[in-house]
Amino acid sequence: MTDISCFQPIGRTVEILEGKWTILILRDLFSGIKRFGEFRRSLAPISPKTLTDRLRLLEEQGIVTRTVYSEVPLHVEYKLTERGQRLRPIFEAMTTWALAEDAISQSEQ
Amino acid sequence: MTDISCFQPIGRTVEILEGKWTILILRDLFSGIKRFGEFRRSLAPISPKTLTDRLRLLEEQGIVTRTVYSEVPLHVEYKLTERGQRLRPIFEAMTTWALAEDAISQSEQ
Repeated sequence: MTDISCFQPIGRTVEILEGKWTILILRDLFSGIKRFGEFRRSLAPISPKTLTDRLRLLEEQGIVTRTVYSEVPLHVEYKLTERGQRLRPIFEAMTTWALAEDAISQSEQ
Repeated sequence: MTDISCFQPIGRTVEILEGKWTILILRDLFSGIKRFGEFRRSLAPISPKTLTDRLRLLEEQGIVTRTVYSEVPLHVEYKLTERGQRLRPIFEAMTTWALAEDAISQSEQ
């Protein structure tokens, strides 16, 4: 029986979330399917190379699927897998923390 | 009223957690007060410079306190602040995800 309170297994989650931009890329994907250009606008000034690298890693880790539509102009869509969707409670906890800290710092002013 | 479902406020949490090692440093602090040398052993091969930088940033962000004990030999202890302790649900969610993914991948074998 693994003791959850010591947070030892967290290393596997860190492998997914670490790296600048990754959490923000995933945040965008929780609101639905995204195209490459949508990420670039949302995450400016991210470079195309960094964005490509991060998305490719998330694909390799089974968090994101990439679908190419061979229309003119060609476009590519990114979507969370079921495994990626299961990260949702982490994002809820991160958002709750940010909102609570805002409320605390406002009440202290 | 902020819509939690879009996870927009998450940027403030990312400022705290991003950077290689930061999540693992915080994981160690959730099990109690730590000395510099304890982090170095737990997080090997982290460099002393990186560890110092990360701890200093966490101190500036109000997540960690640093106490110097002027005994011989001099030692320094690090501890989570209340603000840092409030990150706990994020760490619980990250641990739960890692354990659940392990269980799923084992059941698929």
